Amino acid sequence: MAVTLAELAQRFQARLRGDGTIAISGVATLEAAGPGDLAYVSNPAYQKYLSGTRAGALVLNDADAGLYSGNALITANPQLCFARIAALFNPLPAVRPGRHPSAVIDAAARVAASAWIGPQAVIEGGAAVEDNVFIGPGCIVGQGAAIGADTRLIARVTVAHGCRIGRRCIVHPGAVVGSDGFGYAKDGERWVKVPQLGRVVVGDDVEIGANTAVDRGALGDTVIGDGVKLDNLVQIAHNVQIGEHTAMAGCVGVAGSAVIGKRCAIGGQVGIAGHLQIADDVTVMGTSLVGGSLTRPGVYSSSMPAEPAEQWRKNAARFRHLDEMAKRLKELERKIEQLFTQRDRS
Amino acid sequence: MAVTLAELAQRFQARLRGDGTIAISGVATLEAAGPGDLAYVSNPAYQKYLSGTRAGALVLNDADAGLYSGNALITANPQLCFARIAALFNPLPAVRPGRHPSAVIDAAARVAASAWIGPQAVIEGGAAVEDNVFIGPGCIVGQGAAIGADTRLIARVTVAHGCRIGRRCIVHPGAVVGSDGFGYAKDGERWVKVPQLGRVVVGDDVEIGANTAVDRGALGDTVIGDGVKLDNLVQIAHNVQIGEHTAMAGCVGVAGSAVIGKRCAIGGQVGIAGHLQIADDVTVMGTSLVGGSLTRPGVYSSSMPAEPAEQWRKNAARFRHLDEMAKRLKELERKIEQLFTQRDRS
Amino acid sequence: MAVTLAELAQRFQARLRGDGTIAISGVATLEAAGPGDLAYVSNPAYQKYLSGTRAGALVLNDADAGLYSGNALITANPQLCFARIAALFNPLPAVRPGRHPSAVIDAAARVAASAWIGPQAVIEGGAAVEDNVFIGPGCIVGQGAAIGADTRLIARVTVAHGCRIGRRCIVHPGAVVGSDGFGYAKDGERWVKVPQLGRVVVGDDVEIGANTAVDRGALGDTVIGDGVKLDNLVQIAHNVQIGEHTAMAGCVGVAGSAVIGKRCAIGGQVGIAGHLQIADDVTVMGTSLVGGSLTRPGVYSSSMPAEPAEQWRKNAARFRHLDEMAKRLKELERKIEQLFTQRDRS
Repeated sequence: MAVTLAELAQRFQARLRGDGTIAISGVATLEAAGPGDLAYVSNPAYQKYLSGTRAGALVLNDADAGLYSGNALITANPQLCFARIAALFNPLPAVRPGRHPSAVIDAAARVAASAWIGPQAVIEGGAAVEDNVFIGPGCIVGQGAAIGADTRLIARVTVAHGCRIGRRCIVHPGAVVGSDGFGYAKDGERWVKVPQLGRVVVGDDVEIGANTAVDRGALGDTVIGDGVKLDNLVQIAHNVQIGEHTAMAGCVGVAGSAVIGKRCAIGGQVGIAGHLQIADDVTVMGTSLVGGSLTRPGVYSSSMPAEPAEQWRKNAARFRHLDEMAKRLKELERKIEQLFTQRDRS
Repeated sequence: MAVTLAELAQRFQARLRGDGTIAISGVATLEAAGPGDLAYVSNPAYQKYLSGTRAGALVLNDADAGLYSGNALITANPQLCFARIAALFNPLPAVRPGRHPSAVIDAAARVAASAWIGPQAVIEGGAAVEDNVFIGPGCIVGQGAAIGADTRLIARVTVAHGCRIGRRCIVHPGAVVGSDGFGYAKDGERWVKVPQLGRVVVGDDVEIGANTAVDRGALGDTVIGDGVKLDNLVQIAHNVQIGEHTAMAGCVGVAGSAVIGKRCAIGGQVGIAGHLQIADDVTVMGTSLVGGSLTRPGVYSSSMPAEPAEQWRKNAARFRHLDEMAKRLKELERKIEQLFTQRDRS
Repeated sequence: MAVTLAELAQRFQARLRGDGTIAISGVATLEAAGPGDLAYVSNPAYQKYLSGTRAGALVLNDADAGLYSGNALITANPQLCFARIAALFNPLPAVRPGRHPSAVIDAAARVAASAWIGPQAVIEGGAAVEDNVFIGPGCIVGQGAAIGADTRLIARVTVAHGCRIGRRCIVHPGAVVGSDGFGYAKDGERWVKVPQLGRVVVGDDVEIGANTAVDRGALGDTVIGDGVKLDNLVQIAHNVQIGEHTAMAGCVGVAGSAVIGKRCAIGGQVGIAGHLQIADDVTVMGTSLVGGSLTRPGVYSSSMPAEPAEQWRKNAARFRHLDEMAKRLKELERKIEQLFTQRDRS
């Protein structure tokens, strides 16, 4: 498929600069793009490649437009425009209706005729698989679980009994939705399991990364709001609630019953303690710990960048005496005050 | 099933208050419970829901009993009592004996007649699956591995060759028991693999979370004691030993040959370095690093809660000069001392 | 199989000390070894077991040779020598050519006659599986993916469409190679997916741990160099490049487009931010954060070992006022200077 640059400009509401008649047939990086490809710049680190690119055209914002004299689509949000054009040239493959003969589908499951059930998949009794759903190889949809229309479980995904996935979701390989929460009562030195009776309820347009785990609620449900994006190897404990359009990068861990607002951006490896609330529009820098509720929007951090180890160790050793240092500082202030007072008196 | 409140009180050794004749048929949260449901309070954060609850009865401790005037079971450990009653109303489904036709079971495997081997599962040669074991869909039990009686591998669990899982364990989807340890010798710039010849030996009543990985020992075994509970996405390296009834929350990483005591509680995302020992009854706060042996029971921490990023950055920048600050502080103390000495002399 | 100690010495270029005629038939730990076993010491912590060992012979370096008077192979790198001898006695089982009847192999896949495709595996169309490859139970090789000769996918591994794994690699259970990168453009409050069009290209002699995830590139490829070793539960984001012979311990997270040098050693739970460069021969201590480029070889750290929690909390509380403390310190220095100046003047 090829589309003229002018047509792309019109379709995606960008301003055309240069030759609108050239044919664009794909997208590529600045370095790899050829004359039929569209590329884009948003990260300033890549501006250095502008002069050398062989791309047919670039998507740029107004600020960068002056750095490049070739054909361009100019728009306020080049990444968004580029994402849409990339999807135009690389649509998700259509879901082929049917069931692979190796799939095990319980007679009491309800599978839409338009859905695809892949090889080695298992669909248990009472499960509901809606229109145009793609169940990839090796996926398991547990008893009474529901997969909303147009959702794709890529491969080896487990959706445990009774859990619900919304529409147009994508769940990546190895993800587990609906494992038991980590709930125990102490009986002397032994742990007694608290039955985990809730579900996971995932909204529409959610993406869940590879090997991410989302636990079912203990009594109520774990709730993942519409448009939430979870990266790989994220851990969501029981009864967590995540507000709409919040994104969490890789390796984030969220403890039980945390309630996280809408449109939050949680950096990689962040830890979020349990039984707290995070307001809407909170950003947390990677590797930080959210130890208590954050009641206001804003950017939060407790991340500590590495330094040469020898230097780091010296400072870290002092940290262990910081309280004592603070007390000594206060004592010095007192003494100095005393000396000044005496001087003024004399 | 419905049971009178009086019967529950007697069976679970709680003190009855109010109407013992009411029928209880399930458990629920304070907010969701109806007249036939039992609910409980242990976290003080939920006391606010007491006045509005429609629950038939509550499980409370003596301290909270005064806050609520309705029917109640009063006990020293409401969570434990509730867990047991919840299990009464929601027993694990009985294991249905048999083998799904799609399961691949080696002729040289020994599978108890009372066990269930689910769809798409693989049981390799020499494996032993004991009485009432549940092998869920997509699980793999490797050559010569052994699964103890009444254990449940929920789904997509891998137990590698030669590893042993005890009795009454629960292993959640995606968990891997017996992957090779991360052992290499350096040969110039190249890494040469050290064969990982040990096993994983898991005790009785252990629970292993979704997508958790437990490596086999290099020569000896990796050992998980009775009653240990591992949450999701936990990493246990080769030759680690975990003492009985220790619990580890999500995303904990334990490096090779660490020996961890009994009844420890390890918070989420904690890192534990290799070749160290942790005493019995140690609690480590979430996101901390255990960098050396902890020889005494107690609570340990190196967790740093996030602050507004601007403020955090200012403090973190100073941290890089903490050693220098400590030296300047000392120098000031010397100078002040000098001034005082001179004053006293004059 | 048994081999004389003299023969081992010759074959693995170690210096023989003692009785070269004894037969060695296996390897074991110092504690477990019997008269037919070889053991070794490299970690000084294990020297205490030297006196009690019943091993037929030990592998030692010159420094430790004096601590033990029995039969020995003496070599500069005992761990390397031991690894090779251990592999001699415990070779990987040969790959049995064939295809398990339960495997689903697309007619348009190319599978070498010498390869093994295990039970419940799925090989999609256009995939290439080269000579002597082992595809374990439950593995999925996606459309057009390529698995190089002598590589082993142990079990339940997913290699997504179009990705390439080199020769002699080992990929452990649950690992995912080629999941979509975490790429979105913002459209108001909603996230719009950026199609992830690149591949993962894995070199030769790479090992990838259990439940590790490696995302495909957004446009270009994610590249894992020859000889790289990734432990369990590692997250590699899109377009990351990892140089040859770099090793990463468990739970490391690497954000998008990070370029990591050769022969680096990245400790457990380290976080590496995106769009940065790490030089060759960099070591990062466990749990540290690499927040910016590291342009020189060396050891880096931001790890903070745990202390008793009460003590830790006191110091951490002071940390929140570190900037203010630094300012107070400076003010004190100014005042002291003033007092000294006055004294000198008077």
